[in-house]
Amino acid sequence: VKASKRKTPVPRSRSARDGSPVRSFTLAEAARAVSGRVAGPAGLRLTGLESLERAGPKDLSWIADSGRAEQAAASRAGAFFVSDASAAGGRPSIVVANPTVAVAIWLAHLHPPHRPAPGISRGAHVDPGARLGTGVSVAAGATIESGARVGAGTVVGAGAYVGRNAEIGENCRLFPLAAVLEGCRIGARCVLHSGAIVGSDGFGYVWDGTAHRKIPQLGIVRVEEDVEIGANAAIDRATFGETVIGRGTKIDNLVQVGHNVVVGEHALLCGQAGIGGSSRIGRGAVLAGQAGISDHAEVGDRATVTGQGGVVRGGIVPPGTVVSGMPTAPHREFLRRAAWVARLPELARRLDALEKNARSSEER
Amino acid sequence: VKASKRKTPVPRSRSARDGSPVRSFTLAEAARAVSGRVAGPAGLRLTGLESLERAGPKDLSWIADSGRAEQAAASRAGAFFVSDASAAGGRPSIVVANPTVAVAIWLAHLHPPHRPAPGISRGAHVDPGARLGTGVSVAAGATIESGARVGAGTVVGAGAYVGRNAEIGENCRLFPLAAVLEGCRIGARCVLHSGAIVGSDGFGYVWDGTAHRKIPQLGIVRVEEDVEIGANAAIDRATFGETVIGRGTKIDNLVQVGHNVVVGEHALLCGQAGIGGSSRIGRGAVLAGQAGISDHAEVGDRATVTGQGGVVRGGIVPPGTVVSGMPTAPHREFLRRAAWVARLPELARRLDALEKNARSSEER
Amino acid sequence: VKASKRKTPVPRSRSARDGSPVRSFTLAEAARAVSGRVAGPAGLRLTGLESLERAGPKDLSWIADSGRAEQAAASRAGAFFVSDASAAGGRPSIVVANPTVAVAIWLAHLHPPHRPAPGISRGAHVDPGARLGTGVSVAAGATIESGARVGAGTVVGAGAYVGRNAEIGENCRLFPLAAVLEGCRIGARCVLHSGAIVGSDGFGYVWDGTAHRKIPQLGIVRVEEDVEIGANAAIDRATFGETVIGRGTKIDNLVQVGHNVVVGEHALLCGQAGIGGSSRIGRGAVLAGQAGISDHAEVGDRATVTGQGGVVRGGIVPPGTVVSGMPTAPHREFLRRAAWVARLPELARRLDALEKNARSSEER
Repeated sequence: VKASKRKTPVPRSRSARDGSPVRSFTLAEAARAVSGRVAGPAGLRLTGLESLERAGPKDLSWIADSGRAEQAAASRAGAFFVSDASAAGGRPSIVVANPTVAVAIWLAHLHPPHRPAPGISRGAHVDPGARLGTGVSVAAGATIESGARVGAGTVVGAGAYVGRNAEIGENCRLFPLAAVLEGCRIGARCVLHSGAIVGSDGFGYVWDGTAHRKIPQLGIVRVEEDVEIGANAAIDRATFGETVIGRGTKIDNLVQVGHNVVVGEHALLCGQAGIGGSSRIGRGAVLAGQAGISDHAEVGDRATVTGQGGVVRGGIVPPGTVVSGMPTAPHREFLRRAAWVARLPELARRLDALEKNARSSEER
Repeated sequence: VKASKRKTPVPRSRSARDGSPVRSFTLAEAARAVSGRVAGPAGLRLTGLESLERAGPKDLSWIADSGRAEQAAASRAGAFFVSDASAAGGRPSIVVANPTVAVAIWLAHLHPPHRPAPGISRGAHVDPGARLGTGVSVAAGATIESGARVGAGTVVGAGAYVGRNAEIGENCRLFPLAAVLEGCRIGARCVLHSGAIVGSDGFGYVWDGTAHRKIPQLGIVRVEEDVEIGANAAIDRATFGETVIGRGTKIDNLVQVGHNVVVGEHALLCGQAGIGGSSRIGRGAVLAGQAGISDHAEVGDRATVTGQGGVVRGGIVPPGTVVSGMPTAPHREFLRRAAWVARLPELARRLDALEKNARSSEER
Repeated sequence: VKASKRKTPVPRSRSARDGSPVRSFTLAEAARAVSGRVAGPAGLRLTGLESLERAGPKDLSWIADSGRAEQAAASRAGAFFVSDASAAGGRPSIVVANPTVAVAIWLAHLHPPHRPAPGISRGAHVDPGARLGTGVSVAAGATIESGARVGAGTVVGAGAYVGRNAEIGENCRLFPLAAVLEGCRIGARCVLHSGAIVGSDGFGYVWDGTAHRKIPQLGIVRVEEDVEIGANAAIDRATFGETVIGRGTKIDNLVQVGHNVVVGEHALLCGQAGIGGSSRIGRGAVLAGQAGISDHAEVGDRATVTGQGGVVRGGIVPPGTVVSGMPTAPHREFLRRAAWVARLPELARRLDALEKNARSSEER
């Protein structure tokens, strides 16, 4: 369920994304980048990062945990990220707290994302009343409206949109066709993937006897720093005040966040999850794929709603728990119930037998 | 479930969206705007609209229903929208049929949405063969193709798209990056939020022995007046004829409407709901979040499918009913079944006990 | 469930999409287009294609299968597509292997989609380092980045995006606001509907003790030929290597495909279906609307997951099977269980009666 628990797939020494080859590096250089300690020849020269199974003598690899001892011994890798020097069996290694984290850091070091040149492209539409920090890059077809502020180093991709009085922090990335609408605020180092919409109107109406009359949506969305928002996700502005996405939270593709929702820090909202109006999602909570949280509900800190789980209106998921099903139940209970439901034909047969037995004993 | 039943959140005297302060107003002025009757000093000057709990002496507030009598008595508000003059306990008030409706009207009056200046922006792409009504505003990066007609007063946002021969009514709003594709028709006063796509091809193929062969999608989408379509929603064109969205219907973010669907008037399709091809959704029906209606199904007038409910292919939801679950059952029945499933371990234990008892009586 | 099994709705002799009238044609001309055999007067002149019920003497119609014999006899159609000459009862007809396929072919022949003129529109943003084949059309507001290659005859719609080093095959169509991001590859004759995003980052993070650290997503998406991707769908790039969409696969609106997923050839992914990271979807498999496939799961060749079905992490759906529910079970088993759950109150009553009976016999 947890995205962060996904197995890291097999790397290649060459980025498929941009076709760039990986330059060679020394063990010492890699250790420095990941704040690790070299165990072995610091000057050892390597050229790629590969899984234990695929690595050759010129590749760095990693031993994620002690359960990988056998594969590690069999691996042809030239060196390893390890959490314990002994894990590498005396072969060259870099000792770090968490080898998988080291892989993430080292990959980011080897393959920095392409960064377009700073400046406003011909074909970009930047209102004279917008304020852009130093080093901002605005691509063709992008629009930045009056009163908007874009922090230093931020990249605004082709066709992306920054509305009136919106504020984008430093070193953000708006991928092509992402949009931040009027008055919304995005913290530093956020990433908005293509088609992500921040600040659409909340779904608020009141029946006036003949029609659904719109309740003006006057609030904003405030996205704190280090948040990532997936492709074609939609985050609604608050009716009043703020819809909030907490610091470090990661939102996957096609996720819906309703008006006045508050998502805590470091939450994970997986693909196609949806959150109704005014609900609260706790710090470190996880909504797995297609999970649905109704209006005015609460998912506690570090709680998990598993895939397709449905929390009803006003429902509460206690902190730290894992819940499943619609309506949700504790995950183990959900599994037990599913198992019992599968046994219903058998239970019914036993009931038939007992009834038959009872009838025949009465006849006796 | 019903979006229109959501509690109205706490307002502020200042719009977060555009930062504009609220100008002061008299009781008489507010009463006139909402077609209400003043009970008290018509010249009383106020500056904001706040909930009972937050309002101060300069704020207008509202008493939504008689259940709010206690909070109303305790409120420091300067005046109230009420449905019954006595509810305000003799304090200044404006008597209206529905105080929540009055709030919606008065907020729209206080905070009209920002309207860009009429005209075609530099950087907009308007085909000479398109016809634009008076006062139309077309933002940079927007495209309007040949043969398209855009009604007077309509706003076409940045990067939005109006296809060949499409027709947009008067006083519509296409938010940035919304799209109305070839030949589709949008009625007056409709709102399309960012990323909403009207007129994508229906999902129709026929297996020809070696491949899924596309059935050309030759129809259109016809959206009647006063419809709102949420961010990143997708409404498919009909194979032939029309996919129809009825007058006054409100569609939330990320909703999917398949080809040849007909949605009645004043329906509510909540976030991430989906409707398969050729289904009919009745007048005033509600699809709650993530509800799924399969192909060729029918949801009756004023019926509700609750969150994540699934109506199977060809299924029928009778008018006025509330259904839940997958496959759907009447909501109460769904709750009863869920309660029984939760009791399955207990039922199984009782069955065990009866069997044991039966065995021992046979042995006797 | 199968999109390809949807009834073909009623056609019109005029395309609603572009308002173009249908020119007249002879029986021979239609037979030639669909590789059929004329049975009757080859020179018979017709003007439209209509269903059996709606067709008049100037219309061609079709008899989908032998179950339609009665309607066929009653139809006023001037001629028919048939699979067996006798089906038309001696009236003029065109004999083909599959009449519905003939309808699809003939409609495509009668109503070719509008094709904008080749060339780069004023207002398009094409990097000098991009390579465009002959006859490519690029609309206003579209962007094609450096190193991108676009095959001959491909149409890039308004506001669409082709990223650095991306490759688009021949005769593709990118509808307005579709995006193919850096390095991704699209095969020949693919269609990307508006808002479809190919190549957004996979959702991969590792918890580093204080934050979710991003695992760089260095791979690409490879879409093979003849694939169609629906409006506002999102296909993530692989962490390393490739996310693959197999040849001839059709993807509906708002579908999510996670990183490193491999979808086989000729699969159908219906509206709002979602696939977690590293899962495999077999050749010819069908995911019905809102079906969810968790991470590292496997759906076998020609298997079907019905609407809202949920395959758990690592789950396996055997080839050729039909599964339903969350967690999934064989479809018949799912229906049986649902029926038993509906009977739970009755089972409980019978259990009560047996217990009462047991108590009273003990008292005796």
